[in-house]
Amino acid sequence: MIVPIELIPPQPVKYDITIDKLPKLTFNTKVVVVTNPTVAGFHLETLLSHIQSPELHVVTIPDGEQYKTLQTVESILNECFEHKLDRKSLLIAFGGGVIGDMTGFTASLYQRGIDFIQIPTTLLSQVDASVGGKTGVNNKYGKNLIGAFYQPKAVYINPEFLKTLPKREFAAGFAEIVKMAVMFDREYFDFLKNADLADEAQLKETIRRSVELKAWVVNQDEKEAGIRAVLNYGHTFGHVVENETDYTTYLHGEAVAIGMVMANALAVELGLMSEEEADEVKALLKTQELPTTYCIDDVDAFYEHFFLDKKSANNSIKFILPKKIGSHKIVQDIDEAVVKKVLRRFGEE
Amino acid sequence: MIVPIELIPPQPVKYDITIDKLPKLTFNTKVVVVTNPTVAGFHLETLLSHIQSPELHVVTIPDGEQYKTLQTVESILNECFEHKLDRKSLLIAFGGGVIGDMTGFTASLYQRGIDFIQIPTTLLSQVDASVGGKTGVNNKYGKNLIGAFYQPKAVYINPEFLKTLPKREFAAGFAEIVKMAVMFDREYFDFLKNADLADEAQLKETIRRSVELKAWVVNQDEKEAGIRAVLNYGHTFGHVVENETDYTTYLHGEAVAIGMVMANALAVELGLMSEEEADEVKALLKTQELPTTYCIDDVDAFYEHFFLDKKSANNSIKFILPKKIGSHKIVQDIDEAVVKKVLRRFGEE
Repeated sequence: MIVPIELIPPQPVKYDITIDKLPKLTFNTKVVVVTNPTVAGFHLETLLSHIQSPELHVVTIPDGEQYKTLQTVESILNECFEHKLDRKSLLIAFGGGVIGDMTGFTASLYQRGIDFIQIPTTLLSQVDASVGGKTGVNNKYGKNLIGAFYQPKAVYINPEFLKTLPKREFAAGFAEIVKMAVMFDREYFDFLKNADLADEAQLKETIRRSVELKAWVVNQDEKEAGIRAVLNYGHTFGHVVENETDYTTYLHGEAVAIGMVMANALAVELGLMSEEEADEVKALLKTQELPTTYCIDDVDAFYEHFFLDKKSANNSIKFILPKKIGSHKIVQDIDEAVVKKVLRRFGEE
Repeated sequence: MIVPIELIPPQPVKYDITIDKLPKLTFNTKVVVVTNPTVAGFHLETLLSHIQSPELHVVTIPDGEQYKTLQTVESILNECFEHKLDRKSLLIAFGGGVIGDMTGFTASLYQRGIDFIQIPTTLLSQVDASVGGKTGVNNKYGKNLIGAFYQPKAVYINPEFLKTLPKREFAAGFAEIVKMAVMFDREYFDFLKNADLADEAQLKETIRRSVELKAWVVNQDEKEAGIRAVLNYGHTFGHVVENETDYTTYLHGEAVAIGMVMANALAVELGLMSEEEADEVKALLKTQELPTTYCIDDVDAFYEHFFLDKKSANNSIKFILPKKIGSHKIVQDIDEAVVKKVLRRFGEE
């Protein structure tokens, strides 16, 4: 006997990413804002003055990637239960990528899913993390290994929040912008070479183009079955760098910058990109003083680490490499010796 | 500036529920079977002899509703990481509802989602819990308050596994069967009154009809925006009973049996069902020796408990009540005094 299950397909997911001053936001449900002390100190008053809700709570979690854990998510969930949120309640992620990933994840879990909104306050989360619905936490096995695909109801990107962002964090966000350009758009890359990000209009235009590229990718491939994997350029190497340094030495974007330099070295080795193009990327990263070197102490250990990364299925690593600037190629089954030869060069630096 | 997100809708979810002897199952990916010592002791050898996989692991978790926690899910996740599962790996839930709910939840979380299969071994999970994709865990605030909607790739229901099921657990599954009949199908209710569940063919037919009803509901309303809520008949009361007794006195199905009796009492009070029909349901529950009485010590505390239940939005409780036998009505805003009057009767028993 067979009983078939055929679920009625849900409505297609649609929402807007608004890049502008924060509008007035009015809700007729309970709202919980999740943020950290740093962001709250600078901007919470501004945020709260823009929100109308019958019941508004603020949950503050410690600042930092090391708190991006299942335990922290559980503590946010507990606060939601204490405030007796129901299925119609709303969470607002107010902060950087860590806040956004954990708030979205919490929203996906609370009573099997309630709505949430992203209001990113860092460049990295504005151009990358807040767009696309990847949520989750780290554990001792690596980054973002536990989580859900869960889309927000809206994203509000206010570039004014970036005025209080430390220079190093701004640069970390810039790394993800460079990533988008190198993978998908040579013309955007050239735009970035000449852009003055201190200029408000040019900053806004930079964010818009990055978000549009990200949206273009996510719209095609929400669950990362194909092209979305290209966004992991620099991340395969970068995750190992982050993990080796216990997530404390580098910001995520800084590790991605190093990872892109490593990926480019491999691309040069494979003849996918010229040495000059690799230098061009490095030079662009350096305009924001991003790190572009890293000393690999143990090449074998570094290489082994790849296999724990979630993007590697069946013990074969997929490397996402640039094909010149503005295009990409996913390369599988690169000879171990070739990868290690390239890695060894970073040991010598 | 507005950048619209419009995700390409995913393929409609389709899978089969097979009610029969367990077939040979062949996979070309890593497989992790999640089970508990009791089920493993009786049936693991049988299961393993039916599975072919390049790498097969068994994860055993303690038996019992009190272990249906985020901590247990984390321990299953950790085992999956230790075995280096990738995105193509498969989990198999082999046990009752607790195992099914936690294994499905774990599958939804691991690297943001891997496949899983349900092989339910209790009557309750065969007729109810394994069908429909509700996954999750309990916490101190209540049952199934943290989780995900996450569908399995297949469900294999083998009634032979029920031969080793304790009589009390069999009865607990029967409560959910009665629930389906009372809510949706008078003719099925009459069939149950005369069915001999010790007879293999009649048992199989009973399971099939219950699964078909459940599938019919889930196919219309996966995310419980409407009719699926009807499946909570008996649960609004039952959850409070379970919670008051620390999940240790009653099996879930037993608490649901008590909850249905309470719901029926309220339905009689509101004129939705006759006293005779309520007695008819009670009599059917008693054929399997299910509990139909419960002493409410503190009616106010019992009533307050409803508001923590996830089905109650905006401080108004939705009661799912029978309209005669075979039909249902969702009633909101019942006067507190009326509900308490009915509850008080259970205090006197």
